[in-house]
Amino acid sequence: MTTSFHPPERTLMGPGPSDVNPRILEAMSRPTIGHLDPAFVGMMEEVKSMLQYAFQTSNALTMPVSAPGSAGMETCFTNLVEPGDKVIVCQNGVFGGRMKENVERCGGIAVMVETEWGRAVDIDAVEDALKANADAKIVAFVHAETSTGAQSDAKTLVELAHKHDCLTIVDAVTSLGGTPILVDEWGIDAIYSGTQKCLSCVPGLSPVSFGDRAIEVIQNRKTKVQSWFLDLNLVMGYWGSDGQRTYHHTAPVNTLYALHESLVLLQQEGLENAWQRHQHNHLALKAGLESMGLSLIVPEDERLPQLNAVSIPEGIDDAAVRLRLLNDYNLEIGAGLGPLGGKIWRIGLMGYASNSKNVMLCITALGSVLRDMGYEASLDDALDAAYRVLSR
Amino acid sequence: MTTSFHPPERTLMGPGPSDVNPRILEAMSRPTIGHLDPAFVGMMEEVKSMLQYAFQTSNALTMPVSAPGSAGMETCFTNLVEPGDKVIVCQNGVFGGRMKENVERCGGIAVMVETEWGRAVDIDAVEDALKANADAKIVAFVHAETSTGAQSDAKTLVELAHKHDCLTIVDAVTSLGGTPILVDEWGIDAIYSGTQKCLSCVPGLSPVSFGDRAIEVIQNRKTKVQSWFLDLNLVMGYWGSDGQRTYHHTAPVNTLYALHESLVLLQQEGLENAWQRHQHNHLALKAGLESMGLSLIVPEDERLPQLNAVSIPEGIDDAAVRLRLLNDYNLEIGAGLGPLGGKIWRIGLMGYASNSKNVMLCITALGSVLRDMGYEASLDDALDAAYRVLSR
Repeated sequence: MTTSFHPPERTLMGPGPSDVNPRILEAMSRPTIGHLDPAFVGMMEEVKSMLQYAFQTSNALTMPVSAPGSAGMETCFTNLVEPGDKVIVCQNGVFGGRMKENVERCGGIAVMVETEWGRAVDIDAVEDALKANADAKIVAFVHAETSTGAQSDAKTLVELAHKHDCLTIVDAVTSLGGTPILVDEWGIDAIYSGTQKCLSCVPGLSPVSFGDRAIEVIQNRKTKVQSWFLDLNLVMGYWGSDGQRTYHHTAPVNTLYALHESLVLLQQEGLENAWQRHQHNHLALKAGLESMGLSLIVPEDERLPQLNAVSIPEGIDDAAVRLRLLNDYNLEIGAGLGPLGGKIWRIGLMGYASNSKNVMLCITALGSVLRDMGYEASLDDALDAAYRVLSR
Repeated sequence: MTTSFHPPERTLMGPGPSDVNPRILEAMSRPTIGHLDPAFVGMMEEVKSMLQYAFQTSNALTMPVSAPGSAGMETCFTNLVEPGDKVIVCQNGVFGGRMKENVERCGGIAVMVETEWGRAVDIDAVEDALKANADAKIVAFVHAETSTGAQSDAKTLVELAHKHDCLTIVDAVTSLGGTPILVDEWGIDAIYSGTQKCLSCVPGLSPVSFGDRAIEVIQNRKTKVQSWFLDLNLVMGYWGSDGQRTYHHTAPVNTLYALHESLVLLQQEGLENAWQRHQHNHLALKAGLESMGLSLIVPEDERLPQLNAVSIPEGIDDAAVRLRLLNDYNLEIGAGLGPLGGKIWRIGLMGYASNSKNVMLCITALGSVLRDMGYEASLDDALDAAYRVLSR
């Protein structure tokens, strides 16, 4: 007979999920109530309004999709793309490739703009693609590429797209709560994120926000949205702000308690303070890693503070290092994906996990394992370097 | 500033979510680990194997979809239906209508077989439809109609479909764990359920199971599955049993802890005992309700024990009764849907909520509210009638 599962206590410094604040875990374990209960409906309104704060938007259609970030991505594409629509898809990592899959499965045409993995999306290349494809309807790009740690210039990309009469779909799975996202100021039309990264919440929900122009496109589609579950015309009836709740699907009640609590925490800290904390801990980790002779693959002005892509030194066995970190230190860091597999580690400092204790743990653990494998580095110097930044 | 949300403590006797066992709530609040962590992968294997027990199947492709029951439904249709495919859809309540939407959004042709709401699916009508549509590929029906409390004869319907060379898609959202579902013995090809009904778990996951014939159809599709998120060809790489886990999406880790614990509880009780408990408490509730002059709309041999559809007596204000039950007794029961709106209440006795305390609470609370509204009934007699059944 199978017995209860008791997970090991890890420190999650991979690409997500990141460490979940214990307050959020406790909130999630509160008694389940009905998804049409007036008390639940009141909580939903608070979630929407706190998500507006997190996204810096007044978009009425700002809510969590009842499934992980990949479903948030699909919500954007399946609602906005109709058969034959042309979408400029910027790819500089794994998730641009997933966007292409989404466009094509909606019957759309994906025009790919490729940028080297580890770099921000190439603005000039996007402009060229827009000029060459005057009939494009949408520009889609990843703001924070979780597979490489690169941050793209969302503001400029949105401006450019609008200049060419295109809507924008923005992947903010790893950026929300960790690095500035200003939906209204930048004019983003459709955006999706995840709960398990810089919001410190459990995985399972995808916050999304849609502006007026995007909603107009959705409401004037020629064809039905191909997914019933993700059809915003129906979902709006459930999450809508008209006070009436039409039953659509059963919301993941307890996971929404968790998101509510994570957004209360974000409000209490303040968005600007959260961004600053991510930057501060990133600089400390970077100082420690660089002192050990390790380098980040993304150029300094394109780096995400919450996701550090570190080159694996020559001769070091990627998988062996990660396994020892997990077994000896209960520390999870991420592997590289696709062409970066075996070449980088992805060290997350996201949400609750972005703290000085984790910075020092990571330097200590990674440094010790590397030294044990024959790599030369001074832990004294690395910890000093990190500590100097942390104590600023 | 928004503060933490503390839900009222309800007793959930609606159509689901049902009361969640506190052991499950506690399990869910255990520390999050990575979705590719070896410890998590081991837990996933246990979840799969316990779901096989719950579904009474040896299907290798038995796993939870990372989203609510509606997404489980969509997983079945979007993977099995290709443009132009003809699907016989049996409708005897709300969820058959949702199946039709799914078929059509996949580009399929839905041949509707309508049965009166509150009755089991009409076998003869299905046979007629199969004879009239020799090119049909799939028969889809709801085993346990949550909107009416009617149970259909899944075994016979599957036999009939197979006789006409059709695959079957079965909605078991409300039946799994509450009433017999024998996937292998009955030969069901594709089935989906939900976690928030008779498994006593939180909402947010949809257990599914696919047999060999269904998998063969999926693997030999002419077109790509239109949903990337729900494409089983990709999901199988993540949940597959080859020991290799390919990253697909981030699994809802903590909700899976909850499902694991709910399945441990089901194993400990034993499936047959769980079915019997649901039946026993149903009979007690029925005795109490009938003693008060209330009647169930579904004929006795087509009734679901876990979902009791009760006729609202003439002159009684549906919404006022439910509101008073909620406010005065923290008791949630469900409203009717569609043509049954205002005509029935739906009283669930599902999973952990199927217990003698809830039977007596429901009779007491509903009886008291009705008497206060001028409806004549003896609570003494009703409680006696229920108690006589419970003490058998």
